This record gives sequence, C-alpha cells and structure tokens, in this order.
Amino acid sequence: MKEEVFYSKGMKYIKKDYPDLYEENVSLNKVAYTGKALDYKTQKLIALGINAAFSDDRAIKKQIISNMQEFGTTKDEIVDVFRVVLLIAGKPAFMKAINILYELEDDECVCGGGVI
Amino acid sequence: MKEEVFYSKGMKYIKKDYPDLYEENVSLNKVAYTGKALDYKTQKLIALGINAAFSDDRAIKKQIISNMQEFGTTKDEIVDVFRVVLLIAGKPAFMKAINILYELEDDECVCGGGVI
Amino acid sequence: MKEEVFYSKGMKYIKKDYPDLYEENVSLNKVAYTGKALDYKTQKLIALGINAAFSDDRAIKKQIISNMQEFGTTKDEIVDVFRVVLLIAGKPAFMKAINILYELEDDECVCGGGVI
Amino acid sequence: MKEEVFYSKGMKYIKKDYPDLYEENVSLNKVAYTGKALDYKTQKLIALGINAAFSDDRAIKKQIISNMQEFGTTKDEIVDVFRVVLLIAGKPAFMKAINILYELEDDECVCGGGVI
Amino acid sequence: MKEEVFYSKGMKYIKKDYPDLYEENVSLNKVAYTGKALDYKTQKLIALGINAAFSDDRAIKKQIISNMQEFGTTKDEIVDVFRVVLLIAGKPAFMKAINILYELEDDECVCGGGVI
Amino acid sequence: MKEEVFYSKGMKYIKKDYPDLYEENVSLNKVAYTGKALDYKTQKLIALGINAAFSDDRAIKKQIISNMQEFGTTKDEIVDVFRVVLLIAGKPAFMKAINILYELEDDECVCGGGVI
Repeated sequence: MKEEVFYSKGMKYIKKDYPDLYEENVSLNKVAYTGKALDYKTQKLIALGINAAFSDDRAIKKQIISNMQEFGTTKDEIVDVFRVVLLIAGKPAFMKAINILYELEDDECVCGGGVI
Repeated sequence: MKEEVFYSKGMKYIKKDYPDLYEENVSLNKVAYTGKALDYKTQKLIALGINAAFSDDRAIKKQIISNMQEFGTTKDEIVDVFRVVLLIAGKPAFMKAINILYELEDDECVCGGGVI
Repeated sequence: MKEEVFYSKGMKYIKKDYPDLYEENVSLNKVAYTGKALDYKTQKLIALGINAAFSDDRAIKKQIISNMQEFGTTKDEIVDVFRVVLLIAGKPAFMKAINILYELEDDECVCGGGVI
Repeated sequence: MKEEVFYSKGMKYIKKDYPDLYEENVSLNKVAYTGKALDYKTQKLIALGINAAFSDDRAIKKQIISNMQEFGTTKDEIVDVFRVVLLIAGKPAFMKAINILYELEDDECVCGGGVI
Repeated sequence: MKEEVFYSKGMKYIKKDYPDLYEENVSLNKVAYTGKALDYKTQKLIALGINAAFSDDRAIKKQIISNMQEFGTTKDEIVDVFRVVLLIAGKPAFMKAINILYELEDDECVCGGGVI
Repeated sequence: MKEEVFYSKGMKYIKKDYPDLYEENVSLNKVAYTGKALDYKTQKLIALGINAAFSDDRAIKKQIISNMQEFGTTKDEIVDVFRVVLLIAGKPAFMKAINILYELEDDECVCGGGVI
C-alpha cells in the first residue's frame, strides 16, 4: 500500500540495477509513513505541502494523484494544503501548485476514489 | 485564536510602524488557516512540516510551541511530521528539527496542553 | 494595474472556486507592491531577482514579461538584475534566467513598451 | 567602493591563503554590481531581497548595514524590499528579515548615513 | 577544457552582448575548478551533487553529460553521487536525478568516453 | 565507521525513543555511503558540498570535522569543495562555509588526522 510512490520509471530501473538502493527507498518510505500518532493520510498531506513549498512540479503532480487515488482526498482538502503553502512559501509556489491541480482536473486523469 | 503566530517582537513593531503590512499578515494568516475541509490542527502540522523542510530554526521552534500549546499536539505527532521531512527533505533537515524538539523538551519550556 | 500577475489560468479558477483565497492574493499583491519609499518598478525588479534566484522558470518568464510590458523595462536592466543573481545565487540560476530571457527575445513574444 | 562586502573575517583569510579565490571574488563583485542600466543602489536592494528570500541571517544583516551605510538607504526602503519578500518567499522569510532589521535598530549599530 | 559548460545557447548570446559578464563567467569557472588538492573530476562530481540537491533539471542534465563525456565518468559513479543526494536532500531530489540519468541512457545521447 | 554522523545529541534521543527511525537512519547512511565506484572520502566531500550549498551551519560544521578527523582531509581539499560552492550556489553560501572553516581553525577544535 505504501509503495504507490514507486511506480515511477526511474524506480523500476533502480530496482533492477541497484537493489540495495531500491530496498533502502522501500524501507525509508515505510518508516516515514508509519506514524505512531498521525494517520497515513495526514502524513501524505504533509508530504504534498513540502513538495509544493519546494516548487517541485513532478513531485507535486505525483503527490496529488496518489493522495486522491489512495485516500479519496478531495480538491478542497488539497487546496487547504496549498493555503498553508501560500503563507509559508509565498505566492509563486502556491500558484505553481494550483496550476498543476487544475491541469490535472482538466486532463480528467485523476479519478481513483477522488472527487475532483 | 489564529493570531498566536504574531507574538514575535518584530510583528509588534510592524503593527506600530507599518499597519497596512500588519493587517495583511493578519488576513493572510486567517485565509491560510481557514480550511474548508482540513481542520486547523492538521494545517498547523503541515506548516510545521514545511518549516522543518526549509531548515528554518526560528520558525520550527515557534511552530512546535504553538502546535503544542494550542492543540495539545504530542511529541509523537510532531515526530511523525519529521518522519515525512526525513523522506522528502533529507537527513540534515530532519536532524535539525529533531534537535530543536529535544532542546525544547530539555528546557521544559513547552508545557501548554502538550504531553512532551 | 497591480493585478497584472493574476492573468494566469490557475488564478481564474481560484477566483471562481475559492473567492476568499482570490481576494487574499489581490490584497497581498497590493500591500507588497505599495511601497512607501521605493517605486513599483524597482519592487518588480526585486521580485524578478528573487524568482530568478529561486530558479523558478514559470515565475521568471512571467516577471520578465510583466516588467517589460508594464514598465518598458529594457533588456539591459533585466540583465543587471541577473548580474546580482550570479553573485548571490550562483551560475546555474543565472544561466537559467539568461536562457529564458533570450528565448523570449527569439519568440518575439515580448513587445509591450519593451526594447528587447 | 564596491569592496565593502569584503570586510568579513573569512574574506581576509582568503586574501592571504587563497589569493586566486580572493581576486575572483573581487572581480565577480565588480561585474555583478557594474550595471549598464540600473544604478548600484538598486542592485544592492535586489541583493538584499534575494538574501532575505533565502532566509540567510548573516547575509541579510550585512546587506542591511552596507545598504544603509553606503547609500543612506532608509528603513522604509528596506521594508519595501521585504514587502516583496513576503509575496514571493512567504511569511517566515519576511519575519526573519523584519526581526533582523529591528534588532539592528535596537542595537543602534547601524548609523552610517542611514536614517534608521 | 574547463570551458565545456559554456556551450549553452544563452552563454553564446552573453559573449556577444555582455562581454564583461562572459569573461567573468569564464574566470569564475576557472577559479572554481582549479583545485589545489582535489582533481577536476572530483570537483565536477561535487558540482553534479549540488545541482541534483537543488533539483535543477537543466543543470543536472548538463553536468551528467559533461562528466561522462569529459572524464569517462561511469553510471555507477554518478549513482554514487545520487546516493549522497538521497541522504542529504531527500527522495524527490534523488528520484528527479535518477530519472534524468535513465532518460539520457534511453536517448543514447550520452556516449563520449562514458560507459552508460 | 560510517556511523560517525550519529554522535549528535538528537540522534541519541531518537535511538532511545524511536528505534525504528534510528535504524532507518543507520541503514540510509550505509546505503548512501556504500558507493560501488566512488570511495567513501569522495562521497563525504560531495555531502559537504551539498550542505554548504544549502547554507546549513550545523551540517557544514559537522561535515568539516568528520571529513578531517576520519579521512585526514586537508584544508586545501575543503576549500576546493567550497570553490565549487561559489560557482554553483553563489557567494553568500561560499562565505558562510569559509567562515565556519576558519572559526574551526581558530578554535583548534579540529585536529584528528587533519592538517588544518
């Protein structure tokens, strides 16, 4: 379940060519998201917030999709994450995240359990 | 309630010298934390995660204290935020946040409703 | 006048779906650019410098265009901003900004009052 | 005139131990601040804006002092730079810069030609 | 030899339009890579590591290519750089770098002396 | 040998309170520094370069000390790393790293096998 982030092309290559690095990524992911007190969904929203604050296009897109498909996270919840990004990281980071969200909506490529 | 972040010395000066900037900070704070779907506590945890990812000492310290005092956020919940920071922002950012958390604990200066 | 930055697609969606966030962006923009002592053009050059230092493609492009179209900012003035970026943020950030500037020039898509 | 930034302790050591690096820093500084179209004061304000956006305490402090002492830059002009920082880089970066400005004012250590 | 990084389109324009900036970039490059104690190849690997940590697509791509073509740097050596990036800068920066590496391999566009 | 980085106070607390996080940090460290092609010393220099580019005081200091004490890394080698930082990350990051290096030298607290 927590391996959803590994479906990228690069990670498949790493699994084949550098198995120790692949295993480390799997275990790092597990320890990161095995919260003692917060649930997995909340931790994923935090991950989305950090990626948006870093203005990382590819990571924002992947996080929005995995949040929506795995947890049925709604558009309003995602915008609530980006509200915090506006405050802490400024308007360009906020706008980049908002633009990616609406492009995904236009593409209708996010559908899982999501309500977008 | 949502104005807790304004108790810094600098903000008091801004209120006196640049009231338009002060008002803007108040309204920005309100809009950021007035989530439609996420509760205020979750949004504050996201803010803490971003500040930790940015390795910003002062902001990390302020966010830990305001999370604990306003919401009774526990040490385990805060460490769960930092687990995500380790994954997304790397080990130095994680260690900086962890060190600040334990320094606060040693100082016994965080006590609000928190269980640290 | 100070709303030029809002013509992005994402901001239109925000205006419709999250009017409180839209209003906040308008007021934040106004307070940011309502300098008491510096003129608006100087503040826009500072915004361009920060966006270039952050290596943010989209924001650099938007700022170059709005600087040129609104204020008739010249290519030499923009390169003078990027000189500071080379010093403070290093060569990759400088080269990214320079490349975007010359791509815009090649596209002849910047024309406003600008002399590019 | 443009060498004011070199009075840090580290730069003196570099001058003695690594003269090629020292010379490069001098020439980099000269080329950065030798604008064709913008004046030196405007370029220094841009440098201050970038350092504030990067949340770099030491560089913010040095830039505020050199701006005030060399150009008689006023507190209002510096706050106008930080207004842009609030918009582009978020509130924690803005607050860090504001706090440093007011600490300098309290210390009365900025006096040059400045009106703080 | 140390001028390989200058073959970008933007740098050609700079050479023609702003010769002082061009000369500064040449001398900065020379001083940066003229190590007293480390060899040039090691310094280029450090440059690659920093660019990857900054998540800068364009610079990562250029550094991988110039490392491979100039020094016959192998894929394993480059992945060893990215191992450090995973530790210090987190997983999204690591994945971005890995993806660029494998895209270059797929394109077969890196061939110089490299063994990719 | 590769656990030298764990002697920080925070990591001791993590070992006691969150053993899964501690184990993950140990394994992450091992996989990061177990290069297939680059030696450990080169990887540590890359880590130093990234930390310096990130302007992270605490991490720069720790990396300088561990580089010198574990590998007898010389001052010239460390300055060669910072030459690359000047090029890729700009002068404020370079100066911060240089200042930390010389402060350590003044403190005579770095002595291991190092020749500082």
